[in-house]
Amino acid sequence: MKRFFIGAAALAMTAPAIAQEAEEAAPKTVAEVMEMAGDADWIAPNPDSTIYMRVPHGLIVIVLSDDLAPGHVEQVKTLVREGYYDGLNFYRVIDGFVAQGGDAAEEKDKGSAAASLVAEYEEPIPDGLAFTPLGNFDGYAPEAGFINGMPAGIDRERDSVWLAHCTGAFAFGRNNERDSASTEFYITLQPQRYLDRNLTVFGRVIWGMDVVQAIKRGRPNNGGVIENEEDWTPILSARLASDVPEEELLDLQMMDTNSDVFLELIEARRNRMGEFFYVQHDYLDLCQLQLPVRLKPVEGESE
Amino acid sequence: MKRFFIGAAALAMTAPAIAQEAEEAAPKTVAEVMEMAGDADWIAPNPDSTIYMRVPHGLIVIVLSDDLAPGHVEQVKTLVREGYYDGLNFYRVIDGFVAQGGDAAEEKDKGSAAASLVAEYEEPIPDGLAFTPLGNFDGYAPEAGFINGMPAGIDRERDSVWLAHCTGAFAFGRNNERDSASTEFYITLQPQRYLDRNLTVFGRVIWGMDVVQAIKRGRPNNGGVIENEEDWTPILSARLASDVPEEELLDLQMMDTNSDVFLELIEARRNRMGEFFYVQHDYLDLCQLQLPVRLKPVEGESE
Repeated sequence: MKRFFIGAAALAMTAPAIAQEAEEAAPKTVAEVMEMAGDADWIAPNPDSTIYMRVPHGLIVIVLSDDLAPGHVEQVKTLVREGYYDGLNFYRVIDGFVAQGGDAAEEKDKGSAAASLVAEYEEPIPDGLAFTPLGNFDGYAPEAGFINGMPAGIDRERDSVWLAHCTGAFAFGRNNERDSASTEFYITLQPQRYLDRNLTVFGRVIWGMDVVQAIKRGRPNNGGVIENEEDWTPILSARLASDVPEEELLDLQMMDTNSDVFLELIEARRNRMGEFFYVQHDYLDLCQLQLPVRLKPVEGESE
Repeated sequence: MKRFFIGAAALAMTAPAIAQEAEEAAPKTVAEVMEMAGDADWIAPNPDSTIYMRVPHGLIVIVLSDDLAPGHVEQVKTLVREGYYDGLNFYRVIDGFVAQGGDAAEEKDKGSAAASLVAEYEEPIPDGLAFTPLGNFDGYAPEAGFINGMPAGIDRERDSVWLAHCTGAFAFGRNNERDSASTEFYITLQPQRYLDRNLTVFGRVIWGMDVVQAIKRGRPNNGGVIENEEDWTPILSARLASDVPEEELLDLQMMDTNSDVFLELIEARRNRMGEFFYVQHDYLDLCQLQLPVRLKPVEGESE
């Protein structure tokens, strides 16, 4: 069973025992960096900015940005609090592109939510924004990096910042009008960076991306909507974590992207060390670094 | 129903009517380019180099390279012809990474296949190789592009070429030894370019990537193998298209990456035009350009 695994080193829970001296000098493997992460390097998502979305085949947890796109974040919180998405559907699901959900028929009352939103594709850089640079070229931004767990682009010259369309980005769709987003959301199934600054990303899936990938695709019509409504995937419920009964909450923790260990992780992913790798690329694609997320270890139990 | 679609323009089957003069001068939308593609721009995959792999929930079609990694291609053809994969499983399926299949127990007789293969991570550039350049920076290769439908990297200075780990790449796994690949294959679920030149890619999924994305993930053990064997996904059969009964064949066609229209498609994806887009990036990630694949239109029927 030990043969034929690719990247098994990255998954091993125990790093090889190496001398302290060598550890400090040599580039680290991903497994070694993950071993270094202490409890302080893991943070729980803000329950007021976390959505628990249930579909028949599982749970999707989405964290909303506390830094950017406040209008979109407030809108989706209002919709979720008022139960808007309950009983609606994923109705436009295109493999390799997006899973789009909401009210295909555009008939449901939006309650106190806005009929349309001012675009927040990119924004002036907020004072004191925590931005951890990726540290190499990015094709879609002058500088790429991470803002409190979210992949992002920044243009310091233009005083502008935005969240990036990596896999699991959470955003609102729109029609051709700039300010036409309102209720319909999508989750990217693959990186779609060309959409950066063309739509407003304001969150990301941190748990259950496998559930998103398993949402039924179905046969699309010309606009991409799944023709047969029986192939739509219902949204059973969407709730803010702060409104979810405690016994249904997962004790999720995200690696703190402002930590030193996350900087080490960037380096360990930029050049993959360890016996498995014959070539290092000295390059890291922004969307290649998936945010480490874990269930908080139970005290007294080993991980 | 017309609201809230993202990228609907890319899917629309009818390009806006525009004057011939403007068409020649202005950058084209993806839809306009797809309209330009004539029958000669679509080619059927070589049935001797195409695998039909059936799992309980659908069909996966993999095209093998006719240009690179001949040792690996010959090995998998031998294994497929001798029915090696029939009844084996996808047993290591990690969301966002790979779906790995074969014989987890390493017990099945390999028949006339080799016990291990000489690595073909990269190779000297073959005489007359058709290489269509992507035309912008790539972080993982001096030059990125396409070789007869496959995303690839090339290093002309080192006289070296290789297929790239974009989504749907088909490759053999190995242990830490360079020449240890043999039977176990993986399909990438997301781009994994850091594996380029570290493993041998020798094909890609051209149909049924939605089926691959829906393969059950399950709970992994430390090496990533799905702990509960009941959660493995069986490979019902794997056959070369040339051995598949005609009534079971799909009339698949891939866009010819050596065609002028494919060059136009690269440009249309590098800068997304059309009313929907407010920002063009003048950049295209290699893995962002999914190879257009279609079912050959039936004569007399509109698409």
